[in-house]
Amino acid sequence: MTPTIVSLPQQDWVDELTGLPDVELVVWDMKDAPPRDDIELVVPPYMSSPKRLTRLSELPGLKAVQLATAGFEHALQYLPKGVSLANGRGIHDTSTAELAIGLAIAAQRAIPESVRAQADGEWLQIAGRPSLADRKALIVGYGSIGRAIVQRLQMLEVECTVVASRARAGDDLVDSVHGIDELPGLLPTAEVVFLILPLTDDTRHLVDEKFLAALPDDALVVNVARGGIIDTDALVRACASGRVRAALDVTDPEPLPPDHPLWTTSGVLITPHVGGATTAFTPRLIKLLRQEIPHFVETGELTNTVATGG
Amino acid sequence: MTPTIVSLPQQDWVDELTGLPDVELVVWDMKDAPPRDDIELVVPPYMSSPKRLTRLSELPGLKAVQLATAGFEHALQYLPKGVSLANGRGIHDTSTAELAIGLAIAAQRAIPESVRAQADGEWLQIAGRPSLADRKALIVGYGSIGRAIVQRLQMLEVECTVVASRARAGDDLVDSVHGIDELPGLLPTAEVVFLILPLTDDTRHLVDEKFLAALPDDALVVNVARGGIIDTDALVRACASGRVRAALDVTDPEPLPPDHPLWTTSGVLITPHVGGATTAFTPRLIKLLRQEIPHFVETGELTNTVATGG
Repeated sequence: MTPTIVSLPQQDWVDELTGLPDVELVVWDMKDAPPRDDIELVVPPYMSSPKRLTRLSELPGLKAVQLATAGFEHALQYLPKGVSLANGRGIHDTSTAELAIGLAIAAQRAIPESVRAQADGEWLQIAGRPSLADRKALIVGYGSIGRAIVQRLQMLEVECTVVASRARAGDDLVDSVHGIDELPGLLPTAEVVFLILPLTDDTRHLVDEKFLAALPDDALVVNVARGGIIDTDALVRACASGRVRAALDVTDPEPLPPDHPLWTTSGVLITPHVGGATTAFTPRLIKLLRQEIPHFVETGELTNTVATGG
Repeated sequence: MTPTIVSLPQQDWVDELTGLPDVELVVWDMKDAPPRDDIELVVPPYMSSPKRLTRLSELPGLKAVQLATAGFEHALQYLPKGVSLANGRGIHDTSTAELAIGLAIAAQRAIPESVRAQADGEWLQIAGRPSLADRKALIVGYGSIGRAIVQRLQMLEVECTVVASRARAGDDLVDSVHGIDELPGLLPTAEVVFLILPLTDDTRHLVDEKFLAALPDDALVVNVARGGIIDTDALVRACASGRVRAALDVTDPEPLPPDHPLWTTSGVLITPHVGGATTAFTPRLIKLLRQEIPHFVETGELTNTVATGG
């Protein structure tokens, strides 16, 4: 059997995956022309300019692209006709859900205030604040990472309501999945909102002035999705007024310019887009590739296919 | 049946517990003399000077004391002969475990650094750091709160080893419980250490220079027990050298004086002893009292009795 040629962007990933049968792994970070033209499956670099994906068109035998990211919208415009695109579903659940939980606990339990008080040697009087436990949480986006967040929140005794693009039946975690059109009825009781939905034309600025105004006083908005889900100007106004709070791993624009007002708006906690970027990433990526590459060799398909070039 | 007289320190707790049969609830915060001398069960105030407990000796018919705290060592010296003492086992699990998890994620995911960078509008480059997930954690102390921490850590994909005062068989969460004498063999692989054991003469300064030196480089020590478990001077030296890190809800002394070096030691995160002090407290306390007061009326005993005055 002629081996299937698969490109990976880093030598260390190749080293982790040696020994897969009927496969030849080549290193290609997509910066320069492909090392050979018979590559059938490409795994692009994890964090690099989407523009490198233009090189996909240089591969006449290309059948599929396996992303390491959960988001895939950035890749659609570069996808050659007939080539299928799979996202890295599951790879980032652990790391991103962990940060979402950490941001929510930090905001509820006054960790940012405590850090700032440390510089002044001040022992804050902050007993009696609302815990994350017992809060009513609304999780907007119920894919793989959304589910991981709900599992962790339920262990933390948080009451979870979930929303996806369309209403559907529940699962082992929740009784039902609400549709995004039901948001107006759900926001007034949402004490903590977790955003973990894809950024599309439909979801851009989903969290706008009206969304924020519908939340109860002192509500917390946690964004581990994409910055563009939130209308940043509306968020700055809502937080500056003391009405709501935010914990953001993603912003719009990104990186946030040094003089942007969001940095110093009261009640806002910002981490620099590191939801998935931890040591938890590589072992889970390798595990996925160890399943998906043989599956592709056998069937010509990838499990988490989300689009086909047309 | 003559009602059993029970004192509670706050009117709102009395209001929550009205309707219990064969009980008369009286409000007494122990600041002044008892409102009547036939009180059989006292629930002292949650956060106040232990010295108020001297007033227990003014009650000739006193049978038992139900604390709202998990720690009980402070009350032993004030316990009249033959009076039994119960701690608030379970009341603080949710709130304290939540903060322990939040402190650990914050420290691992660079939330304190991110908060400090916010003031300067700086988008940090911190991709690739160790997540809390996949770390080897050592939980020292395996009572009710220790178990709650382990449950949450396991959901976060953290590998847990637990230590109690004596080795014993495992349970539904862990294969075995190690004895505290096994620490020397366990510390060299402990990437994150959670301290949640009682402060006694035996455990004071358990975490000393030798303990800290045995930990791997960059280990994190999370203390949600009592400040005296750690030799503060040794911790300051170990953190200042960059060898280990700490996330502390409790310190020694406490409150930490404004000029104490611990405040500004690198790698140290401090919250002001708010592990149990959140909105999660009252509903769980009331739930316990709703069980324990009728149980006391019926049997003369409290479930979580930890000592009897002698």
